[in-house]
Amino acid sequence: MSNERLTPENAAVLLVDHQTGLSNGVQDQSVPEFMTAVEGLAKTAKSFGLPTVITTSAEDGPNGPVLPVITGHLPDAPVIQRPGEINAWDNADFVAEVEKTGRKKLIVAGVSTEVCVAFVALSAVQAGYDVYAVIDASGTWNKLVQEVAIARMVQGGVKPITWVAVAAELQADWRKPTGQALAENMGAHLPFYGNLIASFMAAKG
Amino acid sequence: MSNERLTPENAAVLLVDHQTGLSNGVQDQSVPEFMTAVEGLAKTAKSFGLPTVITTSAEDGPNGPVLPVITGHLPDAPVIQRPGEINAWDNADFVAEVEKTGRKKLIVAGVSTEVCVAFVALSAVQAGYDVYAVIDASGTWNKLVQEVAIARMVQGGVKPITWVAVAAELQADWRKPTGQALAENMGAHLPFYGNLIASFMAAKG
Amino acid sequence: MSNERLTPENAAVLLVDHQTGLSNGVQDQSVPEFMTAVEGLAKTAKSFGLPTVITTSAEDGPNGPVLPVITGHLPDAPVIQRPGEINAWDNADFVAEVEKTGRKKLIVAGVSTEVCVAFVALSAVQAGYDVYAVIDASGTWNKLVQEVAIARMVQGGVKPITWVAVAAELQADWRKPTGQALAENMGAHLPFYGNLIASFMAAKG
Amino acid sequence: MSNERLTPENAAVLLVDHQTGLSNGVQDQSVPEFMTAVEGLAKTAKSFGLPTVITTSAEDGPNGPVLPVITGHLPDAPVIQRPGEINAWDNADFVAEVEKTGRKKLIVAGVSTEVCVAFVALSAVQAGYDVYAVIDASGTWNKLVQEVAIARMVQGGVKPITWVAVAAELQADWRKPTGQALAENMGAHLPFYGNLIASFMAAKG
Amino acid sequence: MSNERLTPENAAVLLVDHQTGLSNGVQDQSVPEFMTAVEGLAKTAKSFGLPTVITTSAEDGPNGPVLPVITGHLPDAPVIQRPGEINAWDNADFVAEVEKTGRKKLIVAGVSTEVCVAFVALSAVQAGYDVYAVIDASGTWNKLVQEVAIARMVQGGVKPITWVAVAAELQADWRKPTGQALAENMGAHLPFYGNLIASFMAAKG
Amino acid sequence: MSNERLTPENAAVLLVDHQTGLSNGVQDQSVPEFMTAVEGLAKTAKSFGLPTVITTSAEDGPNGPVLPVITGHLPDAPVIQRPGEINAWDNADFVAEVEKTGRKKLIVAGVSTEVCVAFVALSAVQAGYDVYAVIDASGTWNKLVQEVAIARMVQGGVKPITWVAVAAELQADWRKPTGQALAENMGAHLPFYGNLIASFMAAKG
Amino acid sequence: MSNERLTPENAAVLLVDHQTGLSNGVQDQSVPEFMTAVEGLAKTAKSFGLPTVITTSAEDGPNGPVLPVITGHLPDAPVIQRPGEINAWDNADFVAEVEKTGRKKLIVAGVSTEVCVAFVALSAVQAGYDVYAVIDASGTWNKLVQEVAIARMVQGGVKPITWVAVAAELQADWRKPTGQALAENMGAHLPFYGNLIASFMAAKG
Amino acid sequence: MSNERLTPENAAVLLVDHQTGLSNGVQDQSVPEFMTAVEGLAKTAKSFGLPTVITTSAEDGPNGPVLPVITGHLPDAPVIQRPGEINAWDNADFVAEVEKTGRKKLIVAGVSTEVCVAFVALSAVQAGYDVYAVIDASGTWNKLVQEVAIARMVQGGVKPITWVAVAAELQADWRKPTGQALAENMGAHLPFYGNLIASFMAAKG
Repeated sequence: MSNERLTPENAAVLLVDHQTGLSNGVQDQSVPEFMTAVEGLAKTAKSFGLPTVITTSAEDGPNGPVLPVITGHLPDAPVIQRPGEINAWDNADFVAEVEKTGRKKLIVAGVSTEVCVAFVALSAVQAGYDVYAVIDASGTWNKLVQEVAIARMVQGGVKPITWVAVAAELQADWRKPTGQALAENMGAHLPFYGNLIASFMAAKG
Repeated sequence: MSNERLTPENAAVLLVDHQTGLSNGVQDQSVPEFMTAVEGLAKTAKSFGLPTVITTSAEDGPNGPVLPVITGHLPDAPVIQRPGEINAWDNADFVAEVEKTGRKKLIVAGVSTEVCVAFVALSAVQAGYDVYAVIDASGTWNKLVQEVAIARMVQGGVKPITWVAVAAELQADWRKPTGQALAENMGAHLPFYGNLIASFMAAKG
Repeated sequence: MSNERLTPENAAVLLVDHQTGLSNGVQDQSVPEFMTAVEGLAKTAKSFGLPTVITTSAEDGPNGPVLPVITGHLPDAPVIQRPGEINAWDNADFVAEVEKTGRKKLIVAGVSTEVCVAFVALSAVQAGYDVYAVIDASGTWNKLVQEVAIARMVQGGVKPITWVAVAAELQADWRKPTGQALAENMGAHLPFYGNLIASFMAAKG
Repeated sequence: MSNERLTPENAAVLLVDHQTGLSNGVQDQSVPEFMTAVEGLAKTAKSFGLPTVITTSAEDGPNGPVLPVITGHLPDAPVIQRPGEINAWDNADFVAEVEKTGRKKLIVAGVSTEVCVAFVALSAVQAGYDVYAVIDASGTWNKLVQEVAIARMVQGGVKPITWVAVAAELQADWRKPTGQALAENMGAHLPFYGNLIASFMAAKG
Repeated sequence: MSNERLTPENAAVLLVDHQTGLSNGVQDQSVPEFMTAVEGLAKTAKSFGLPTVITTSAEDGPNGPVLPVITGHLPDAPVIQRPGEINAWDNADFVAEVEKTGRKKLIVAGVSTEVCVAFVALSAVQAGYDVYAVIDASGTWNKLVQEVAIARMVQGGVKPITWVAVAAELQADWRKPTGQALAENMGAHLPFYGNLIASFMAAKG
Repeated sequence: MSNERLTPENAAVLLVDHQTGLSNGVQDQSVPEFMTAVEGLAKTAKSFGLPTVITTSAEDGPNGPVLPVITGHLPDAPVIQRPGEINAWDNADFVAEVEKTGRKKLIVAGVSTEVCVAFVALSAVQAGYDVYAVIDASGTWNKLVQEVAIARMVQGGVKPITWVAVAAELQADWRKPTGQALAENMGAHLPFYGNLIASFMAAKG
Repeated sequence: MSNERLTPENAAVLLVDHQTGLSNGVQDQSVPEFMTAVEGLAKTAKSFGLPTVITTSAEDGPNGPVLPVITGHLPDAPVIQRPGEINAWDNADFVAEVEKTGRKKLIVAGVSTEVCVAFVALSAVQAGYDVYAVIDASGTWNKLVQEVAIARMVQGGVKPITWVAVAAELQADWRKPTGQALAENMGAHLPFYGNLIASFMAAKG
Repeated sequence: MSNERLTPENAAVLLVDHQTGLSNGVQDQSVPEFMTAVEGLAKTAKSFGLPTVITTSAEDGPNGPVLPVITGHLPDAPVIQRPGEINAWDNADFVAEVEKTGRKKLIVAGVSTEVCVAFVALSAVQAGYDVYAVIDASGTWNKLVQEVAIARMVQGGVKPITWVAVAAELQADWRKPTGQALAENMGAHLPFYGNLIASFMAAKG
């Protein structure tokens, strides 16, 4: 496990099966918490210019299309529609897209945490990548499944993380140019922070 | 307590102390759940054309400005800045604005539930109004305070409700012209519903 | 509010918007708990021969078809597809079907509790019926919405109940002919009871 | 049940068995939440000059002395040591002290909620008082006991409330002289509010 | 609803279907919490000499024998084995035993809360009794069923209570002869209190 | 710990003490959630043709027979009735059956998680197997015991997993022949998924 | 970390600061759950004849005497009253007693989990012992402190366990002479099991 | 990871972004629990004379000033205002202050746990320090973020701890001169302990 930090230059984002149908099975967090974390991560990928690979399963079937909050912010990200592989790492096109990014640090999120995220994450660790699983921007069927998924991934060498920590690690210093976009992203998707800024601006007059 | 239903013609909305500073004390729901319910209610007020009265306390002080999600959707609603009255019903300007709406059914939400909402709601019941307290579009310091506030208001004749029920009761029939705006509102702020619609649209092709 | 008990002769069941799409928004209980309660209630309606009226909203749209666990057990129950009315009581065909049952006690369940169930239940109380809302065989978006819905219905004179209590009140005496079917229903849908019976049978040899 | 509001002129505070030994059995809230609410209520009584009657049970025995946070703020309040009566209303000295206040609105808190608070509250209602039970400044053995105690008291005509609502109702208008003390009280015992004020002061410069 | 208090002279206890098999379905509290409350109530009945009527359902079948903690403390209480009636009030022998007690206040507990307790409690209210449902000495399948059962019983005029409140109301004054037995009962079944007494005795030396 | 994945060719299932009596002690999940996960795992074993070994403890005594949902789906699986060994790995017949499967990856579930599952799992790791503990298809006395059991097993090199992840890892690709059976299994035992498919089929028309 | 199992011959029990005063601070479980687990462990130590060392802190001060449920079952266990050392391992008399047992496996429980248990456990691991921390027979101030204590101990090589698992690992085979005592212990302190046995005995007739 | 214990001579405290604005986003504990833990830790640092380094982010902006409970107790601790670095370890002045302490064991707390605490803690481990993260004296946005932050830090070699454990490990023996201050600190911020002492003192007379 590398100790090198996440940077806009060394990391890529993998969004796995964040589809509208599957997302309605998410019950390990409230739906508003899940959805706002996904959007926060998508905006993070966009504003830091992280190469992002999206993949779907049965997109024309019941699992549904990619969440609009993802495609809206990342319209140009490649979308690999897997014809059947449950573990996206088994799909050569997906792995090729990942390799094309040239990044060795992979930030993975998706639905469901214990299948779509964990399988990719563990396979990527085996393939030599340094892998971060974004738990709050992922979702699964209930809290117990989430807890077990975290335990299994940690045991397998995956780093558990949340979307605000991903963004903060990438930003590193608020003075970098991406700082304004991050503040807006946090203001919108970590809503206490938006309230905090609004209160401050008002007090300053 | 009247059995008449909420309609766009008989109801007004009162938004009490939904301010950025106070909102950061809300812990009876997660902040994303609270904020999305507030926005859902604000859009409901807008799309049904309900007369809306906003009031604030210490707006230039620590309590902060009105939540931008409210002022953004309801830019023309009157805002009564109370100079000190905790119970907005004690402020003559506020009551005058309420009376000006000509409505006898009042939909109340705010921060905090047990003070700003409950005080107005109980006073309005005394004044002869039929009052609905929107619990999820209101917020308070912890779950216990919420539970006690609900119990006190129900005991005092206030009807407890949530924002989706308010919107559905106003809509009454999906074929009315406001149906499209309501579907979009629910799609955004009851996010499972947005996912459901997106899945359906995709399946229909 | 009548003190007369529920009997197979005085009660009817109303199942409101128990549709596959809407059911995926249910988060006030776990999905397995909700689904098993719905099936327990459907089997109760069947085995006690209760007249049952099913109604749906946007069945050909995103809300989806009636849950197969309902139609499977109650294939002959009339299904009133409402063209737009949110409160089923506003649909004349639905009310006509209810009246046709000749029953004055109505057992109501559905999705969502605070809209589809509460609206019908409160309207039926106004219309002079004695109304029971089956909370566990109903579902809604989160625990808070459930709590508020119960409070509002109780305030309005609706009796809150759960499916096992409905079945037990109908059965009244285990020696009546429906007892065997009820024991099997409880064995399957209140699974501890099935385990209890299996243990007992084994111990008896 | 009177609709008149709590004022510094019409209300008295009764603190029942808030003793150090009994308080270590409180598990319906975390101990820090309970203790801070008790202190918030004690300071409220003090700053609004509310006549306060303290009573104890087995004070020289295991139940222990009155909580120091109470005696520290209210050193002059009479303390009625009951020789055995569980319901303080059965103690003539206690009732005499209550009557001596001349107030008809009683704000009651104590340990435990379902015994020491509920018994006094229900008896006081019978005696013609308008009674408020301060749930968060009271404590009991677990959450279920709290819930049942609230339900029983509401059924019996007691008004459930929390300490911030008591203080806010007494203050009525922030411009009254007690406002500064209340702001400090809330700043200390509703700690988000203290943070809010500190942030605001800093932003103002 | 009478305002008269529970006394050893005016109250009887009804224990309904507290059987070993049914008790293993209790999940609204932890099993140790449920079992200790049941035993606390049984000892209360014994030490205050309350007439107690026990009833069972399918005792020779899967529901199992009466909990040994009950029969151990109350060996002489009559046990009415109901041949089939779910609502014990429908069994003439049971009602006769209740009437034989000559008491008008009935303290009811059992498994399950929403069926065995609620049915008896509501019927007894109809029959003119003043009824207390002991929620923590009763049990049911999950927390939601408990909440709904409380709401239904309160709506129907039943008083919700917990075992410590029952015992304290019966004791009224610690100086009465039953005080020692109650202190021991609480010391054992409200275990913080036993710890408190032990600490005090040690400190006194 | 091997990184090789679970396949229908390398894995066997061990079901340990899933008996009707013991299962009524399960309180770390709701009973419906536990039972549906057990059945989901049993069907997984069947449809992937995994060799399965069942073992019981005191089957003719209080622990009761194997859950019918297991024997119904896996009628031909050998059942080793242990005469007294708590850790099934201490029973030579059980180990012989495991060895007979020729598999080196063992998927273990049972009641209770911290005894019957953990003991076998840790022993099997010692014996050189790669062991997966299926936490949701296992059950124990409360959430804390579950948490401690997971921590102990992870510390000892057991992989924690849930039934859907087991099934998905075995399936690997939805296009394999077992896909239809898995979809049906998930549709029934991860009920949101069944709703999703039903909605999709209806939308497709 | 040894893989050898706990046996009556290789293990000793250390009970650290299970005192009446400290125990009233336990809030990570309900008090009845904590107390029954402590008694279950004490009886386990007794019936398996495990050498047991008890130690206390400020026993003549506020922390109070050893829990009577411990001294009642283990009257002959040495009690080391520490004059000031917080970590019992710093007390030479305590360590001498531990060494005197001649056992290399130490089963540790106490109050509080993160101080009294964790300090001893981590020190004993350093001293070369194989250490088990019994989490449910230990207690601390809230759930978070418990979670952190488990994480710290697991990180330091301590094995987390619960009392039933300790007893079951010691018993190993129900046919050993200690089986009857263990069944009675579990029947009393894992109360569902007592109910199960009682139901079975009754069914057998 | 060193096994050496925390002592007043080998440890320093780092307080990271404990600012009034950020603290109003803390929702993984109740605010009173968080605030009292922070103050407990601050007093610990003071009474043991631990070198303490405070750092802030955007102190003149929305994040607000350092919590007064910190600056009140530690008025002389250096405060490094970071001009933009999110990870305080990236700020040379901060690291210089840490190095100036000469301590190799760092006790870290702050807001938020997963960013401000975790980043510093992981960097300090990389730099060769032995690092303790004080979870209850830190705070973050919700319970899930806390859980993930703990998992990530433990995986990275940080020791999770709580404030009472820090204080107890530093004290080591109650007879050391700091014992009185620690008892007072615990009496105030672990309030059950204050109650315990007060009860004891009263009983002693």
